[in-house]
Amino acid sequence: MGDYVNITDVTGRDGFQMEKDWIETQDKIDVINSIVYSGVKRVEVTSFVSPNAIPQLKDARQVIEKIQENNIEIIALVPNMIGAENAIDANVDGINVVISISETHNKKNINKTVEESLLEIAEINRFAKKNNTAINIGLGTTFGCPYEGLYEVDKVVNVIKRLMEEGINNFNLADTTGMANPLQITHFVNTVKSLFPDAQFSLHLHNTRGLGVVNLYAGYKAGIRNFDAALGGIGGCPFAPKATGNVCLEDIVHMFELMGVYTGIHTRKIIESAKKLEKVLGYKLHGQVMKSGLAVGTYKND
Amino acid sequence: MGDYVNITDVTGRDGFQMEKDWIETQDKIDVINSIVYSGVKRVEVTSFVSPNAIPQLKDARQVIEKIQENNIEIIALVPNMIGAENAIDANVDGINVVISISETHNKKNINKTVEESLLEIAEINRFAKKNNTAINIGLGTTFGCPYEGLYEVDKVVNVIKRLMEEGINNFNLADTTGMANPLQITHFVNTVKSLFPDAQFSLHLHNTRGLGVVNLYAGYKAGIRNFDAALGGIGGCPFAPKATGNVCLEDIVHMFELMGVYTGIHTRKIIESAKKLEKVLGYKLHGQVMKSGLAVGTYKND
Repeated sequence: MGDYVNITDVTGRDGFQMEKDWIETQDKIDVINSIVYSGVKRVEVTSFVSPNAIPQLKDARQVIEKIQENNIEIIALVPNMIGAENAIDANVDGINVVISISETHNKKNINKTVEESLLEIAEINRFAKKNNTAINIGLGTTFGCPYEGLYEVDKVVNVIKRLMEEGINNFNLADTTGMANPLQITHFVNTVKSLFPDAQFSLHLHNTRGLGVVNLYAGYKAGIRNFDAALGGIGGCPFAPKATGNVCLEDIVHMFELMGVYTGIHTRKIIESAKKLEKVLGYKLHGQVMKSGLAVGTYKND
Repeated sequence: MGDYVNITDVTGRDGFQMEKDWIETQDKIDVINSIVYSGVKRVEVTSFVSPNAIPQLKDARQVIEKIQENNIEIIALVPNMIGAENAIDANVDGINVVISISETHNKKNINKTVEESLLEIAEINRFAKKNNTAINIGLGTTFGCPYEGLYEVDKVVNVIKRLMEEGINNFNLADTTGMANPLQITHFVNTVKSLFPDAQFSLHLHNTRGLGVVNLYAGYKAGIRNFDAALGGIGGCPFAPKATGNVCLEDIVHMFELMGVYTGIHTRKIIESAKKLEKVLGYKLHGQVMKSGLAVGTYKND
């Protein structure tokens, strides 16, 4: 038995939200279903935010209704209580509630202080549990903020501690604007894992400064087994200027395959999904394996 | 005292050799001098190959003559004895002689069997030592070959053993077509370092499948302190179809700075070099930091 990792696809949420041109609802559905067909078991499909803030995701409910459920977990991101109500009403399996570690980023992203967010998350948590919906907290700017710079892990620890007191134990450590480095990831992950042994941690990494994959690997080596990624490396954060995309889904599936680490995802199929997405978006994506082919059998089989 | 790494710039050789359009000799010189001005202490400036094979590097000698030497090491790649003679005649500080671990790749790249290459390298080594020129062996396709697939580390060990018997002890482990993964890098590096404690190993990594930086990090963690990189991630191998470029120089300088690892290279200056190169080449380069800015102080200082 080899090792394994669980990859959550965030193409539909963190990917699509950055696209300026409208993507037809059916195209969104086709891309996400193609990802599911490749073997991805957990998909963050959309976000229940104000359609004024992110018009691209105004079809959240319609998209969710058309995802073919085959024992997969459908997640939606929510910024507040209204979003949580709408997501749960749309029958998601789990919600991902966002809060930024950085005051400035939290204010710009969801227009609340960190304290206000903590209080609302406590309320959302009670509501989600009453409705048997899984809750996961996305800790934005965990590894630094473009407005506030880098900070010590204590700042992250304090927020986790407060949330665990509310009975929450799933945390998505997000490098929202791609500021992390692998030594920092190792240090932060080791710290939170040892301080909160009952919590589950996942990593959401951006490749803004070319370190998405190396940071993911550092997290893997430090014991993380749950990662977010997006097809073709699309996405970013609308409030993080110049940021490029997420860690590229098919590139890390390919990497884990080379490493002998089980993902449950079919490498060739997920590359086909990336090519489908490229057609939908109409521009060249950042993915490497979709251009170069697999490392093994490159010329014989591709 | 923190840790350190030595980075060899290969923009002039592995970078330029892949460019189809002629780059003016003066532009080459300006780019390389700008790299040296940023603090890079070792530069693989060019290659002494047949001008028919790689016309782009036919100005090897003129380029070398114009590099501003300030205690830097000027290296040239050579594929054979004629190349070595020309390089030494041009007064390089060191030569990098190539041989591929894969028979098929060696044949396609320099038209020799591995055995023939080993015999010629022995002769080149005697010639270089007689001329007080440092010699380094570039072990192409160390981590796999597009024609022969992946292989065990033994195949690499056998070649190193033969070369060490000739008194050679500097080896550049090259992932010529970007097939390596970080666990493999760790395994190969640990193996050769423990079998050959008197040898010096460096890594030459390509980002063909998105794993350039993570492989470099794995090498660093396994004790390697010498790495090749090219500005803007340009380059590749003319005989490795579809391959994209080298590990991006300014992105790894930035990473090491975040990690607190000393490179001796000025991050902002090397980013300026990448922008200069982008102007010379006339197309968008793959570098991330040149687009996103530094991770710290992104908005205040950039």
